[in-house]
Amino acid sequence: MGRYNLEYPKEATNTVKRLNERGTYALETIHRIINCSKILYISFNTASQPFPAILPMIGQMGSFDRPSADLGDPLDLYLHGYVSSRIMNLSRAGSEDVEKGMPVCIATSHVDGLVLAISSFSHSYNYRSAVLFGHATVVIDEAEKLYAMELITDSVVPDRWRHTRLPPTKAELQSTGILRVRIASGSAKIHTGQAHDDKHDMENEAMRDSVWTGVLPIYQTMGEPLASPYNRIDVPGYISEFAKDFNEDNQQQALDAAKGQ
Amino acid sequence: MGRYNLEYPKEATNTVKRLNERGTYALETIHRIINCSKILYISFNTASQPFPAILPMIGQMGSFDRPSADLGDPLDLYLHGYVSSRIMNLSRAGSEDVEKGMPVCIATSHVDGLVLAISSFSHSYNYRSAVLFGHATVVIDEAEKLYAMELITDSVVPDRWRHTRLPPTKAELQSTGILRVRIASGSAKIHTGQAHDDKHDMENEAMRDSVWTGVLPIYQTMGEPLASPYNRIDVPGYISEFAKDFNEDNQQQALDAAKGQ
Repeated sequence: MGRYNLEYPKEATNTVKRLNERGTYALETIHRIINCSKILYISFNTASQPFPAILPMIGQMGSFDRPSADLGDPLDLYLHGYVSSRIMNLSRAGSEDVEKGMPVCIATSHVDGLVLAISSFSHSYNYRSAVLFGHATVVIDEAEKLYAMELITDSVVPDRWRHTRLPPTKAELQSTGILRVRIASGSAKIHTGQAHDDKHDMENEAMRDSVWTGVLPIYQTMGEPLASPYNRIDVPGYISEFAKDFNEDNQQQALDAAKGQ
Repeated sequence: MGRYNLEYPKEATNTVKRLNERGTYALETIHRIINCSKILYISFNTASQPFPAILPMIGQMGSFDRPSADLGDPLDLYLHGYVSSRIMNLSRAGSEDVEKGMPVCIATSHVDGLVLAISSFSHSYNYRSAVLFGHATVVIDEAEKLYAMELITDSVVPDRWRHTRLPPTKAELQSTGILRVRIASGSAKIHTGQAHDDKHDMENEAMRDSVWTGVLPIYQTMGEPLASPYNRIDVPGYISEFAKDFNEDNQQQALDAAKGQ
């Protein structure tokens, strides 16, 4: 644990303008939102298209140079993808500055609840949303690739990597690419709490008597594990404990969000 | 129901290259994935930044000109946001061609399960992912704005709009902007099924005896409604039925995905 709560500097790129009291720049908060996301959205530009592109990818914040780094430390984002995909090729050779990498934006969010008010314009979500900006390059070093592959696999199911067939084959390592994004800046936006209405709606007795107001909590649930046809063993403890924690933590998060925590 | 299953033309922008057997261009499939998403990710470029930006927004496919249109018909995407937000200002005035609008990419996805294999490189998700490309303009016409506001509100909780305080005040209408995205192209990528391993892992008896393989189904769950401190009424039927359907449908989707359906 560091002595400081590090923050990304507020600059034009990352400053939250709308409802800015919901904005935060703390590395720990932003990295936590990224790391508990099953999918990240990566945006990049291509020379041939007028539209930016978005790819859904699996990724995780980490530090190859200092694997024991905390969530609140400066970290890189590692992304996993097919080695000859467009984003890999662009990151490898298509950016103006190969050393620096391709400019990307990464976003993800979690919906913790639907907030229903008297006026539809006072409706809201409870949510946690994060965005990062940075430069993506393809990881060449084999040790760093393996570090990132283990990091990403264990982010899907904790402790899974060492319970799979190891080491990876040469073909597996060659066909799977890892992108490293050096983060330039980022921000998060979080909203929690109960329904809220403007004064004139709160004083509208007919509406107070007829419109249900409150929060519908939403959370991801993991169902019973479904063994494959070729599976031969019982569900191991590290999987069943993960499923239990996943369900308890996600439900609690949604209930806490409704309480404004 | 039309006589044809319309598809977006396969062009350079939208063609799924990696694992292209998972790709689909059917309007109905793509629009359905968009419309059951609680959050959409909208990417756009700004003149002042090297990075594309991504905003999480709430939106819905619809047709103001023909509100009875099916999901498989050509539709516009309506997005809801604060009227003076950056994306609204850019869509209003910042694009090179004001008539045509600002080029945007829209993406979203649903994770239906974690697919665990013997090799970590054969791990996968069951998922439904969609991407759309188009041009965003700000909706000026008041009737179209109201159409979109009702569409988006009812996408969050079906039938909610008419159960809120109506009509919107002048201030509400002025402070809320609606973007309409004319869709240029799109695609979806869907993966379902059980774990799968390569031949040499299937023949590895030691691994077959020690690695659990299968699917951990994942789905969004809605918890018990939490009334606000100023709520005076019981949970209405349209909300409790929505919560019940939401939970049953999402769970079934994850279980079906594991079965390859």
